[in-house]
Amino acid sequence: MIGPQVDALVRLLARLPGLGPRSARRAVLHMLMRRDEVMRPLAAALQAAADAVRQCSLCGNLDADDPCSICRDPERDAALICVVEQVGDLWALERSKSFNGRYHVLGGTLSALDGVGPEDLAIGPLVRRAGDPAVREVILALNATVEGQTTAHYIADRLAACDVTVSRPAHGMPVGGELDYLDDGTLTAALKARRPL
Amino acid sequence: MIGPQVDALVRLLARLPGLGPRSARRAVLHMLMRRDEVMRPLAAALQAAADAVRQCSLCGNLDADDPCSICRDPERDAALICVVEQVGDLWALERSKSFNGRYHVLGGTLSALDGVGPEDLAIGPLVRRAGDPAVREVILALNATVEGQTTAHYIADRLAACDVTVSRPAHGMPVGGELDYLDDGTLTAALKARRPL
Repeated sequence: MIGPQVDALVRLLARLPGLGPRSARRAVLHMLMRRDEVMRPLAAALQAAADAVRQCSLCGNLDADDPCSICRDPERDAALICVVEQVGDLWALERSKSFNGRYHVLGGTLSALDGVGPEDLAIGPLVRRAGDPAVREVILALNATVEGQTTAHYIADRLAACDVTVSRPAHGMPVGGELDYLDDGTLTAALKARRPL
Repeated sequence: MIGPQVDALVRLLARLPGLGPRSARRAVLHMLMRRDEVMRPLAAALQAAADAVRQCSLCGNLDADDPCSICRDPERDAALICVVEQVGDLWALERSKSFNGRYHVLGGTLSALDGVGPEDLAIGPLVRRAGDPAVREVILALNATVEGQTTAHYIADRLAACDVTVSRPAHGMPVGGELDYLDDGTLTAALKARRPL
């Protein structure tokens, strides 16, 4: 296109999720017009994040420190462990500000098709953490998909020997959702789990 | 979220066109998992492009050289100047491989509402270039929008004193469409069928 530097940049950007060649070109043009306000700061931020961020050896979260700021926070309840599939799920829960315990990132779900077995996920470390007498409850906040729920059941079996309560988030109507637009599975689950008003 | 480095990176990425906070977070997670294959090369590519790329003093194109590789290419027809609004439009024409002359990037369109007058666009330099006896034709490849066509008519008036043919791409372009979003076939057809204004 307009020189090897820009071609290389477009190719790299186009490989990010949610971007294709066309949106990558738009982004590159946008940045070339705002070199000092956008492009150089972004290059520096990428470099800084690549250098600073590492995986927490306890929970698998990404942070500039190890153990991560959540694992080291004395204000957070060490008796509660919330198990999630990916770091993105952890971020979503943190944004909701609805959980004040600690996390455990599995790194995926069991999948016979993709050849992902228990030893490929952080299940062993989770069982070890759950063996700590300080831990009272493990919440399996995995996706409500077949893979997520299969993995949740497998982990529940593995945790049966530990002295912890194993729970999962409620299944039901999303807040703000309309009955008419819900799928049958969600409706059935929501009706079954009905609670007194 | 997970440290100031990642927060800063998400904020910067979310400001690119086509990305919002959610897709920026996804992209950052994707990169953090592929630090050496994606993140560091992208940082380096951004830095390299920011350092190398400049605006061509003749046509307004972005390139690592000034004059740009198109203006310096002896294979390209110096008698033909194709006027476009933005560099993205130039890229679109180059991708279609349907034009072998040179370009002139205006930098926008006349707009009374936004207070953009002729002196804010590269119209003066265009008139000077068109005064060169070597130039035979000026193609006004502006968007088929009201602003684009208003600007085209204004430029045609300004070029009336020069000894050049002024043309525009055929109305094979969908009315209201923008150059950068057209497929190559339509661009080629529209350029081939250009008619005197």
